[in-house]
Amino acid sequence: MTERPRFATYTHAGKTSYGAVTAKGVVDLAPQFPQWPTLREVIAANGLARLTEAAEQRAADISEAEITYQIPIPAPEKLICVGVNFPDRNEEYKDGQAAPGNPSLFIRFPRSFVGHGAAIVRPPESPQFDYEGEIVIVIGKGGRRIAERDALNHIAALSLCNEGTIRDWVRHAKFNVTQGKNFDATGAIGPWLVPYTDEAQLADIRLTTKVNGELRQDDRTSRMIFGFRKLISYISTFTALVPGDVIVTGTPTGAGARFDPPRWLVPGDTVEVEAEGIGTLRNTVMDEQP
Amino acid sequence: MTERPRFATYTHAGKTSYGAVTAKGVVDLAPQFPQWPTLREVIAANGLARLTEAAEQRAADISEAEITYQIPIPAPEKLICVGVNFPDRNEEYKDGQAAPGNPSLFIRFPRSFVGHGAAIVRPPESPQFDYEGEIVIVIGKGGRRIAERDALNHIAALSLCNEGTIRDWVRHAKFNVTQGKNFDATGAIGPWLVPYTDEAQLADIRLTTKVNGELRQDDRTSRMIFGFRKLISYISTFTALVPGDVIVTGTPTGAGARFDPPRWLVPGDTVEVEAEGIGTLRNTVMDEQP
Repeated sequence: MTERPRFATYTHAGKTSYGAVTAKGVVDLAPQFPQWPTLREVIAANGLARLTEAAEQRAADISEAEITYQIPIPAPEKLICVGVNFPDRNEEYKDGQAAPGNPSLFIRFPRSFVGHGAAIVRPPESPQFDYEGEIVIVIGKGGRRIAERDALNHIAALSLCNEGTIRDWVRHAKFNVTQGKNFDATGAIGPWLVPYTDEAQLADIRLTTKVNGELRQDDRTSRMIFGFRKLISYISTFTALVPGDVIVTGTPTGAGARFDPPRWLVPGDTVEVEAEGIGTLRNTVMDEQP
Repeated sequence: MTERPRFATYTHAGKTSYGAVTAKGVVDLAPQFPQWPTLREVIAANGLARLTEAAEQRAADISEAEITYQIPIPAPEKLICVGVNFPDRNEEYKDGQAAPGNPSLFIRFPRSFVGHGAAIVRPPESPQFDYEGEIVIVIGKGGRRIAERDALNHIAALSLCNEGTIRDWVRHAKFNVTQGKNFDATGAIGPWLVPYTDEAQLADIRLTTKVNGELRQDDRTSRMIFGFRKLISYISTFTALVPGDVIVTGTPTGAGARFDPPRWLVPGDTVEVEAEGIGTLRNTVMDEQP
């Protein structure tokens, strides 16, 4: 079996580029496709298959150790996150509200995320720095009011997210999560995009989060309250999805806030989010530098 | 007294451009400043004064009737909205919660807005289409953890917003407002940017919203719960503001949901948001076309 192609955005020698991360090393593809400045344009042109082909025909340009990973789609038009999407997660909010009948959604800015291998940053405003491992889908074909039966055909690629959260700031005000979900560099997306091929890639895969090697979150996508089809269909009811849009699909129970006392991230911790067939997103934690 | 310069983004003859809207007509400025593709880059380069100078030296190229207004900053990095920021607005939510100690924030995508003069669109999913008149500030100088005393120096320009809302969809799920605030083309921003000069432009100006000429919202910025300084300082605590970021600063009491029975917008209605020294943002309402 040949390995699945994996496409990353990275910096190397002071330049941002994208390419394929393979067993032989990184095949730097951006210079070969100047018509596609970022992976967003690649996806908009339905070009992942051409990248795969190009990567197979060429030798590696650089080793993986030489690149600094960035988030795969540097500037998506939309980056939408789903809250409360695994069993028992609603109870973690301890607000006495019943589980909602529709997906809970919030928006993050790309600058709240770093790439694979970079440090996620604890700000001085709060010690309540928490992890949330999640599966990411990237939209290929755009659309509005996409039917559930067609929804998976709109996925171009998969990735992973540590949807890092400043827990007390998600309840800072009435519409509560924006602030706590948008501290700069508190989350991570990556390491790469894996092209989407068929439903088996998503339907029942294991998703885990480890902190310093200790398993904290462990669940399967088959248990999601709102599945991938429903999410795409529901979100596209109100907004037209476009190529490169990023949907972060929700985290299993077991975030640090779940424990008594809570187990917040501290500098030096390592967080690993892993899903079968996608990879492992690994980040350390550091305090913000003054 | 010379009129204040006003800079708009618009389409004309199939092309998107920007220019100055003056008493003599529209001075089309984008072709003269190819280094600045949009008003976002103008602001990032601190170039509004140069646009003003250029507009004064030239004749008008087209009449205002020939342009189709677009939202002034087509693709800001961030578009952040403030909820519950005028007296009595917290009560309108009827959720029994006390007024929050910090600004309530949510995020909208640019595609949820249209320009001045365009129709805002009622989707088939709900008849609960509501208006919210608001003042918009556009960030000039970026920054993180901006002190309140310095905050106003980070404003480049002012504009207006009808922060149109699908009211029942703001409570569709647990984190409640994303959906109801992001239906495509339900709000408007414009007509233009007015360069910011000094605090008197903002400190105590009247903000009104009329529907078919009837006054529905009428308040003054001096009564905002969280003032402009506080908003800039608070938001920049968690995210670095960058030039062109848009902050929609909250609406007075008197939205359609306030009435009993509620007075929702219907096709054919005209909504006008007006503020002293900024202008009047006018939009009609239409049903989404199948």
